[in-house]
Amino acid sequence: METLNHHHKVEASIEAVAIKARKAALSFQSCSTKKKNEALQVMKEKILSSKNEILEANQKDLKAAQEQNLETPLLKRLDLSSSGKLESLLQGISAVQNLEDPVGKVTLATELDHGLELYRVSCPLGVLCIIFESRPDAAVQISSLAIKSCNAVILKGGKEAERTNRALVDCIRNALESVQLSPDVVQLVSTREEIKSLLALEQYIDMVIPRGSNSLVRYIKENTKIPVMGHADGICAVYVDKDAEEQKAIDIVLDSKTQYPAVCNATETLLIHRQLLSSVFPKIATALSERGVVMKCDEESRKALPEGVKAEAAQESDYSTEFLNFTIAIKTVGDVHEAIEHINSHGSGHTDCIVTEDKVARDLFFALVDSAGVYHNASTRFADGFRYGFGAEVGVSTNKIHARGPVGLEGLLIYKYRLYGNGHTVAPYAKGEKELTHKPIMPQYRPNWEQTWKDQ
Amino acid sequence: METLNHHHKVEASIEAVAIKARKAALSFQSCSTKKKNEALQVMKEKILSSKNEILEANQKDLKAAQEQNLETPLLKRLDLSSSGKLESLLQGISAVQNLEDPVGKVTLATELDHGLELYRVSCPLGVLCIIFESRPDAAVQISSLAIKSCNAVILKGGKEAERTNRALVDCIRNALESVQLSPDVVQLVSTREEIKSLLALEQYIDMVIPRGSNSLVRYIKENTKIPVMGHADGICAVYVDKDAEEQKAIDIVLDSKTQYPAVCNATETLLIHRQLLSSVFPKIATALSERGVVMKCDEESRKALPEGVKAEAAQESDYSTEFLNFTIAIKTVGDVHEAIEHINSHGSGHTDCIVTEDKVARDLFFALVDSAGVYHNASTRFADGFRYGFGAEVGVSTNKIHARGPVGLEGLLIYKYRLYGNGHTVAPYAKGEKELTHKPIMPQYRPNWEQTWKDQ
Repeated sequence: METLNHHHKVEASIEAVAIKARKAALSFQSCSTKKKNEALQVMKEKILSSKNEILEANQKDLKAAQEQNLETPLLKRLDLSSSGKLESLLQGISAVQNLEDPVGKVTLATELDHGLELYRVSCPLGVLCIIFESRPDAAVQISSLAIKSCNAVILKGGKEAERTNRALVDCIRNALESVQLSPDVVQLVSTREEIKSLLALEQYIDMVIPRGSNSLVRYIKENTKIPVMGHADGICAVYVDKDAEEQKAIDIVLDSKTQYPAVCNATETLLIHRQLLSSVFPKIATALSERGVVMKCDEESRKALPEGVKAEAAQESDYSTEFLNFTIAIKTVGDVHEAIEHINSHGSGHTDCIVTEDKVARDLFFALVDSAGVYHNASTRFADGFRYGFGAEVGVSTNKIHARGPVGLEGLLIYKYRLYGNGHTVAPYAKGEKELTHKPIMPQYRPNWEQTWKDQ
Repeated sequence: METLNHHHKVEASIEAVAIKARKAALSFQSCSTKKKNEALQVMKEKILSSKNEILEANQKDLKAAQEQNLETPLLKRLDLSSSGKLESLLQGISAVQNLEDPVGKVTLATELDHGLELYRVSCPLGVLCIIFESRPDAAVQISSLAIKSCNAVILKGGKEAERTNRALVDCIRNALESVQLSPDVVQLVSTREEIKSLLALEQYIDMVIPRGSNSLVRYIKENTKIPVMGHADGICAVYVDKDAEEQKAIDIVLDSKTQYPAVCNATETLLIHRQLLSSVFPKIATALSERGVVMKCDEESRKALPEGVKAEAAQESDYSTEFLNFTIAIKTVGDVHEAIEHINSHGSGHTDCIVTEDKVARDLFFALVDSAGVYHNASTRFADGFRYGFGAEVGVSTNKIHARGPVGLEGLLIYKYRLYGNGHTVAPYAKGEKELTHKPIMPQYRPNWEQTWKDQ
């Protein structure tokens, strides 16, 4: 009975949070660029002036986490005290300040008839819910992105970072208040049981963005009707075609696998053209072996290994595994079609590369591989919002709708249609008395496009 | 036991359909404009030459439906024999033929470094599943849109139109085959129990588009993890502001409510500014009454009715009801903020209008009403893909992600990123030895943008 009551209380309090977020989102959606940037500026100042309190809270979280034997990588991500970490967090806010305002952009303008003008204008999604683990810097980064894009955000942080997240979010909420914005634009919730309650609130929350382990992402995708933007797996492949240039193949396979293997855009599978088994492949295998990469080979490629280079026999499941370490699955294919077929059936739709000098093979690969990124002669590690030049990254999406691949601020926006009329009704057009003109309106000539009212 | 076996068989056969669709979609995604238009051309010819068989099948469906006492509007939608219906269906295919190819459009092009170029290119979603009732013309219309956008489609038609749908889809599949495309680009399934099985196949189906009653749409949204594009309700409002011009207010309210009330963009709620209760409102009420509209009024507006004009007392639920007939709910509000608040809490995010000559009120309304369409001095009935100039309409979406409002072909597309490199690796940029340039590439200067291979 007590548990049940407790559960009901959590549900009720989480719903209250979501209602407050929705209310804040509705009034925040038209906030001016100036005011948003002011909020970000004050946010930086508050974090800087609260540095000691934040680091104290962080030390308490760290101590508790050590006592609970949290794994070392998680502890490392939790720790804000290491040199430069707080500074780079503040630089991150400045970077978001400097981004162009993504709200209010006109992406379509059509005159439907004389005095009747249609504009499609970018606007915020509304309420975001970010579910993240360990890294408290994510709370700040995501709040900045939400503020810049006029979205309200519910931050669901991990329990292990509760004190740190609270100290940071206090600064953010203070900053919002001090520029006369609702502090409920950014809210923090922290206990584990709240995830399920949050995921049920589809009437208030417009998008869930998970930032954490594959299992967390999968759990979220399976337990909500709210759109989830993100990816569970990053199973990227490099296909070395028969017309590959040797040095490019070696460089790209090595970089894609070993430059930083713990991330989603690192390569997990090498597909090698059969004709290269005795020429290029032994050199790639030697290079991988020298870098300490564990190779899991199909029978053909295993037989083609040079003397002294060892590899394990690949299991079928290795070709659908995201290793996230110095392991690579290797498979021999007969042509580019077989490579495409393998990627479309085993990959995760993230990023896949063909190494070749044959433009026909390249274009086939580009046309038929159904992934967010298709690369020619370039490392899969380039798949990143900053490298793409977005100035920010909300995440990498393997969804097929809304936003795909590395997602910048644009992914937090949708649009609405504004129609400016002058008493226009449909009847005369339906009766054929009048006809719609459908003339595109040039950006420089938008007679009706004026806005008299702006949030100060 | 028998039912269980039967159920398993349906599931297995539906999964086989979805697997075939996915396979067809993967090879279809790069089809040339020419070939797609040829398929549409042959489709028209086959339908024309099979006219008698199609109408015979349609007569059988109609007879069976009459015997089962199907409602008259459904019978009307099922009947293809009425004059001009088959012709307008063929004209619809021609219109899709004439649309610009939406696939392969470059929406972003950036030089990341010398010889390393990033292009964002529109591409099909993959597999669409359309669930529709009664109207067999929808099968043809949607198949044309799917073909034009390189998507495969599973058509789940109603049982009442099974023979007609089959005859039409036979023509479409024949047309695909005769231009050497996989007929599985368009597949038809027909029994009711298949819906549930289809909705579970999220690994093969990228989007579900319902075309039918509110209850069908709601059922689908509640029973699938596949993104659903559409709307359950269209609860549109017209707010007549204190600075409204009398004639515009009367015209727009009348047109929005009565021009064609059975559709989602017809208005269901009139919000009237308190200051107009004794001036403009009586004239609007008289006009509505003369057109036979049943008014459901709050107490204030009811008291303000002119002599001889009758109205019912509104219930709270009337303000959240999609009447789809000659009924309107009327409420008095104190200012534009109250109108916005009402719309955001009672509306369905479809299309809402403000009638006013005050630009500040207009811009507040435009900024703060969270709907797909915000209109100034224009009938809500304009919310339509054809009226917007899209040349086609996939549906109207009240979703907040991917596509919002009237959706044209664009809604059936996503994009992928193509990266053209020349052996580029990430390491030198990570080490700071090289820097990314992030220069926009102008449309006229795309040295790497060539495609050697095209589906014939």
